[in-house]
Amino acid sequence: MLFVELIRKKRDGKELSREAIEFIVSGYTCSEIPDYQVSAFLMAALLRGLSRAETAALTNAMLNSGKVLDFSEIAGHKVDKHSTGGVGDKTSLILAPIVAAGGVSVPMVSGRGLGHTGGTLDKLEAIPGFNVHLELDEFRRILAKVGCAMIGQTEDLAPADKKLYALRDVTGTVESPNLICASIMSKKLAEGIDGLVLDVKTGSGAFMKNPQDSEFLAGLMVETGERMGKKMVALITDMDQPLGRYIGNALEVVECVEILRGEFAGSEDLVELTLELCGWMFYLGGRTADKDKGRALALEIIRSGRGLERFRELVSEQGGDVRIVDDLGLLPQAAHREDILSPASGFVAAMECERMGIAGVILGGGRFKKEDTVDPAVGIVLHKKVGDPVSAGESLCTVHYNSAERFAEAKPVITAAYSIAGQKPEPRPLVQKVIQGKSV
Amino acid sequence: MLFVELIRKKRDGKELSREAIEFIVSGYTCSEIPDYQVSAFLMAALLRGLSRAETAALTNAMLNSGKVLDFSEIAGHKVDKHSTGGVGDKTSLILAPIVAAGGVSVPMVSGRGLGHTGGTLDKLEAIPGFNVHLELDEFRRILAKVGCAMIGQTEDLAPADKKLYALRDVTGTVESPNLICASIMSKKLAEGIDGLVLDVKTGSGAFMKNPQDSEFLAGLMVETGERMGKKMVALITDMDQPLGRYIGNALEVVECVEILRGEFAGSEDLVELTLELCGWMFYLGGRTADKDKGRALALEIIRSGRGLERFRELVSEQGGDVRIVDDLGLLPQAAHREDILSPASGFVAAMECERMGIAGVILGGGRFKKEDTVDPAVGIVLHKKVGDPVSAGESLCTVHYNSAERFAEAKPVITAAYSIAGQKPEPRPLVQKVIQGKSV
Repeated sequence: MLFVELIRKKRDGKELSREAIEFIVSGYTCSEIPDYQVSAFLMAALLRGLSRAETAALTNAMLNSGKVLDFSEIAGHKVDKHSTGGVGDKTSLILAPIVAAGGVSVPMVSGRGLGHTGGTLDKLEAIPGFNVHLELDEFRRILAKVGCAMIGQTEDLAPADKKLYALRDVTGTVESPNLICASIMSKKLAEGIDGLVLDVKTGSGAFMKNPQDSEFLAGLMVETGERMGKKMVALITDMDQPLGRYIGNALEVVECVEILRGEFAGSEDLVELTLELCGWMFYLGGRTADKDKGRALALEIIRSGRGLERFRELVSEQGGDVRIVDDLGLLPQAAHREDILSPASGFVAAMECERMGIAGVILGGGRFKKEDTVDPAVGIVLHKKVGDPVSAGESLCTVHYNSAERFAEAKPVITAAYSIAGQKPEPRPLVQKVIQGKSV
Repeated sequence: MLFVELIRKKRDGKELSREAIEFIVSGYTCSEIPDYQVSAFLMAALLRGLSRAETAALTNAMLNSGKVLDFSEIAGHKVDKHSTGGVGDKTSLILAPIVAAGGVSVPMVSGRGLGHTGGTLDKLEAIPGFNVHLELDEFRRILAKVGCAMIGQTEDLAPADKKLYALRDVTGTVESPNLICASIMSKKLAEGIDGLVLDVKTGSGAFMKNPQDSEFLAGLMVETGERMGKKMVALITDMDQPLGRYIGNALEVVECVEILRGEFAGSEDLVELTLELCGWMFYLGGRTADKDKGRALALEIIRSGRGLERFRELVSEQGGDVRIVDDLGLLPQAAHREDILSPASGFVAAMECERMGIAGVILGGGRFKKEDTVDPAVGIVLHKKVGDPVSAGESLCTVHYNSAERFAEAKPVITAAYSIAGQKPEPRPLVQKVIQGKSV
């Protein structure tokens, strides 16, 4: 096979065979095909699109470029959840122990903050001592013991994705739903799971700002997963404002522990989404007859304290300081706090959610460059969310910061993100749509 | 400027500024921008297209990536001709001395055979001793003395094109009219000419098989040249069968000398096209009031023998053996000749022109790989062309070859290229369309 002929074929909008796609992925992974040819191919794939069959073949080839985990010796189903990324989106830390406590295993390989969005690994590392760089044997041991384990991407899992993603990042070929699908699904399916719940964000804080794009991607991922024999469901969920009350790594751990304690006040949207996701995970994992029964089980697990206990075990097994579970004050604390006051009276009409995420990065909670280090303590505590009434001079949120300079830069970004209006806005539904796989 | 942002802009179908395009070309020429980013850009440019302004900016940036020749110290206009490539297309060798003899200078930088098409440099090198690798000072001296000079691409002229072309070749990004236009025009305008006649081929032996594509490219090149202050005209000409009677490097030199001697029999199409091109060159060069007067002048120059004399001077100045002009038998001769016989009686209905070109390459007259050496002696002498009556068993053409193995491979290709039918086909016009620049 001559690679330039495959580029030309895709360029002309023709469909590539499974063999052709395997040739590309394996040739690139072992560096037989150079970057400059693959980047031309990726641009052609982005502009011409890939068929469902091509997308599945690409996902499969990327998945098989490395190790595919096999947890068949651990009894019961293994299910995971993946979010396309948002601001204040911390459901993973809450749902993994809940679902584990309910008897369905959750082998979770997560990422770091990307752009304006947060990352599960950064949040976990806000817990002193928590180790996300486990060897696969240790990951397996903890999964078997606790029912869940949470690590970062390793060199062994889907190495083709790592190489392709780095190339896409510098060649303007990130924004292809087909390539995004293959990237996400190849990594998730390497986890050796039976089912996957996708949380596809839409709105001003999501990578996909409009529902059509989010739905297209969701449908593509559901179909791709099904073609590979997995139980799939995707929820299109609102990311037009931050999820929950807290933005920032240690602050988000606080909110998760509070919810696992049953303290839901101010975090109703986050609780609602977490219960929905847990409901689907229990259902896909064969634990309950439907999603609603799964949701009720999740609530019962929180109320009984079993979710919090499972979280404590997870922290302990992964080397974290378990004392934080009982004393949240042991988590990193920022040196300074300052309120952002409302400039007018009325209702919070909207929050430019991406700006809130960027403000969090400016404060030091995320990275502008890969090599930046993250400050776990900084963040934003929201007192007012969309639809809340507010008086002029009342606090909209409190900023936790360590650098006056960074605060000065973040403050106008946060102020500009809020819009105050005389009328209460129409509420947006949290779960906008559910796309179920045919086998679900 | 961040290059990835420019890739994304072009990917999204937006227009790039002149500065952005200059940034790309200069960054790539000095290797500051890597191949893998440029190839993604080229694919986006191919699939999204470039505007006329972008095409002109790209041409200009590539032109200015190297030396631009200046022949202002040589009196009179300088005009050149460029062909997009065909089979048996040898007009350059005939028209350059004719136009020079008429008082318009022709500084010609030519190429080698590409794919199934022949190249002027390979034809010139069939003349023993002829040197196409002249220093620019020597090129200038001969141009001033003879009125024409013919060399190959040098490192100094449009180096960006050399680098970009090599990348396009391996990334499936050759077939973009905008990129083809910029590649051709940047090299031609580096010659320091005032006007350019384009011979854009169409048909089975051309790179562009249909007239629409050829016309689009022709219009693009005319407009690009005009934007840069050049007098431009493009002829869309038929390349549905080989031009003239001979295919092969030394054989084509024979045909050129014969025409310059006034021996036109069997080469009527070639003579016709050459006279048309000369006519336009004289007109663009301000020598005659219109193309037809230029055409008449060209014919007169042939008849008077002044064209042949100028050819003799050119060969002599560029180190070639001038004795070939009077004794064509001194040109390289193939060891073997064999006729290809007509399988049926009737008329030659068509000749798959690209196949004829490929047959020539198989015989050794061209290159499959860059490092292949060319055999100047081999080729095909056509006895029958499209529309000619033929009897079964009569010779269609004579193959001149040095390797029995290569002949065995080429023979079925030639046989398959000819189709014989009961009816005489409708003749195709040689010059299908003329596209004149506004200032012409």
